Amino acid sequence: MFGDVSPAYHPLNTETVPAYVRSRPELADIFRPDDVIESVEVGDGNLNLVFKVWAAADHSRTIVLKQALPYVRLVGDSWPLPTDRARIEAQALEIHERLVPQHTPHVYFFDPDMYLIAMRNLNDHIIMRKGLIQGIKYPHFAEHIGLFMARTLSSTSDLVLDYRTKKLEVARFINPELCKITEDLIFTEPYRRHERNRYHAELEPHVAAIQADIGLHVEVAQLKEQFMTHAQALVHGDLHTGSIMVNQTDTYVIDPEFAYYGPMGFDVGAVIGNLLLNYAAHEARSSDPQVRADFRRYLTNTIIQVWYVFVREFQPVWERADVIDMPRLYQESYMRRVLQDSVGFGACKMMRRIIGLAGVEDIRGIEDVGQRTTAASLALNIATTMIKARHHITRIEEVVEIAEAARPTL
Amino acid sequence: MFGDVSPAYHPLNTETVPAYVRSRPELADIFRPDDVIESVEVGDGNLNLVFKVWAAADHSRTIVLKQALPYVRLVGDSWPLPTDRARIEAQALEIHERLVPQHTPHVYFFDPDMYLIAMRNLNDHIIMRKGLIQGIKYPHFAEHIGLFMARTLSSTSDLVLDYRTKKLEVARFINPELCKITEDLIFTEPYRRHERNRYHAELEPHVAAIQADIGLHVEVAQLKEQFMTHAQALVHGDLHTGSIMVNQTDTYVIDPEFAYYGPMGFDVGAVIGNLLLNYAAHEARSSDPQVRADFRRYLTNTIIQVWYVFVREFQPVWERADVIDMPRLYQESYMRRVLQDSVGFGACKMMRRIIGLAGVEDIRGIEDVGQRTTAASLALNIATTMIKARHHITRIEEVVEIAEAARPTL
Repeated sequence: MFGDVSPAYHPLNTETVPAYVRSRPELADIFRPDDVIESVEVGDGNLNLVFKVWAAADHSRTIVLKQALPYVRLVGDSWPLPTDRARIEAQALEIHERLVPQHTPHVYFFDPDMYLIAMRNLNDHIIMRKGLIQGIKYPHFAEHIGLFMARTLSSTSDLVLDYRTKKLEVARFINPELCKITEDLIFTEPYRRHERNRYHAELEPHVAAIQADIGLHVEVAQLKEQFMTHAQALVHGDLHTGSIMVNQTDTYVIDPEFAYYGPMGFDVGAVIGNLLLNYAAHEARSSDPQVRADFRRYLTNTIIQVWYVFVREFQPVWERADVIDMPRLYQESYMRRVLQDSVGFGACKMMRRIIGLAGVEDIRGIEDVGQRTTAASLALNIATTMIKARHHITRIEEVVEIAEAARPTL
Repeated sequence: MFGDVSPAYHPLNTETVPAYVRSRPELADIFRPDDVIESVEVGDGNLNLVFKVWAAADHSRTIVLKQALPYVRLVGDSWPLPTDRARIEAQALEIHERLVPQHTPHVYFFDPDMYLIAMRNLNDHIIMRKGLIQGIKYPHFAEHIGLFMARTLSSTSDLVLDYRTKKLEVARFINPELCKITEDLIFTEPYRRHERNRYHAELEPHVAAIQADIGLHVEVAQLKEQFMTHAQALVHGDLHTGSIMVNQTDTYVIDPEFAYYGPMGFDVGAVIGNLLLNYAAHEARSSDPQVRADFRRYLTNTIIQVWYVFVREFQPVWERADVIDMPRLYQESYMRRVLQDSVGFGACKMMRRIIGLAGVEDIRGIEDVGQRTTAASLALNIATTMIKARHHITRIEEVVEIAEAARPTL
């Protein structure tokens, strides 16, 4: 699982892509032998090369190649990463495509020697984070992502899988190195002085307060423990708005290389937390209070709707459940605990995006430093309250109330 | 993992044991080529053949052979069971011997073709359950089992293992078929009409009340969910007093074939729950109130001491912990949650021993049916309160208070 790199492995570049593409029989329906094939490397993630590839004569004949690098791209080859994550991603995409084909990019093939996945080029879609930063609303997003999460999480859990398949799937998706990144970057480093943390100097007093808040650390330690031990469902593991491709009609979830058996709330929380980061950013982003209020209402309504759709699409599982094994009160408790987990994990993801290594454009992209500090401080306060109050939360509306009541410290 | 039976596999019998033993070089220090080797099959479990083997000329030169059968012995070959459990048991014993050699029978070898473990014959020890039924006290037991559990559970958890080893160990100890037995027999069948349940007719009104108690079912469903999803540590998985060999000086834990990554409280609870079953049995077993009260005090003191030793022996792990990652309040919360889990799981184990398939001699062995009903009903009431009250329990003494306050319904 963590052996040496395959001898056939070599990182592709735009010069070697055409020959590679022509060598793959799975692509014979897309590219013809006499095609001139063009490509461009567009990876803006930290872990992979991503090539958009097309026929020069017909740009609609196009694919994406995603190739794992054996190190974390952002920090260079000092941080090696196993290429096994490409297998994990390919197998998770296969499961997602089976369960929710309408929200999963089609995979043409996985090349286990090159740690490479060839998949549909979502050329008509943009990364959701970029859209939200521009103030674009996505009217179907809540419906789509709620369905995606309900299907992928319920169908990979003990609620649907038989006892043996579930346990063998846990083993197949053991993903130590990628989980370790989350354990460190999300649950550890933001809460202490750490060389990998990144935030602007003006935020220091608020960060210092968070790093001195032992009550908060106790809660984060419990969430970290749960991330490390609670094998509830096959989670995407990195379901922020940068892993979602959207337009006005479609929603696609990409990049499940962090997939492993973990708590359902880790995915639901990623969506909620990233919507709230954008909510906090809009404190500063628009000068027109009317526009700002309107977009924030869109975001909070979306959060509420995501949860309601999730619960609604989860419901068929409960309807098939044996009520002696799982009484209604247990079913309600299960969903309430997923909500509380989502609130806690979502907040941890907000924290790390403000204090830790990998910031988000929503907030770090705010040019005016005063406005950036305000937005970041607001996000930290929303997240702190979510983490501490999550045990008492029983309705998604309470999360929105927390966000609306919060004020920046700085 | 669940493939066909090895072609070299054949169940041993007392006629074939001598040749097999002589064929194993690992035993050359124990048995000489000219030894007459004798054996007897003593398995009283449900899943295996167990041979005691000795040199006729010197009974001190002796071993035990434990061979997995491919079906559940108690119900015959209609219930097939994977022989992979012998590998699990051998690997768990290896870990236990490394961590607590003083409480683990030495393993001479594991034969992967015969699904057979050759181990030390604990000839000077008896199954603890039998001793307790006879009213024998074991003055070092609490000290020994508390140490055994603290070492084996803490040392296989994320608290001690590095992130990668822990996750690979989870995969190595995936044990679906044996976990399924627990899921069915402990968490499912006792709470419904089921053909495998076994209890005497006089207990029916109390069983009917338990099977109609939805509040109880909700709690049991949460405990089952936790058993199935909470990969906290490598648990023994079947740590009742029938898996413990004792005398006045020593304690050995045997039979970890149910080992898997689960909640620590599942082991601690097994010990507590089985001591409480014996406690309930002593309601009826002795006619002398003085003797009865004395032995019950021994049992409740033992329960308290087991927990205190467990906490004390766990302490070095916390002393090495980083207090930013794991503040003292988190450490206390961790131990409190292990206690609450132990109370819940221990109670579930009591329930199944009264209502479900595999009863315990402590109670089923009571000849007088009225006394047997009293003891069983008392055990059910202790267990019901433990399950429902566990969220509020913060001290082990509260468990003893629950037991002392409980009265039989019938």
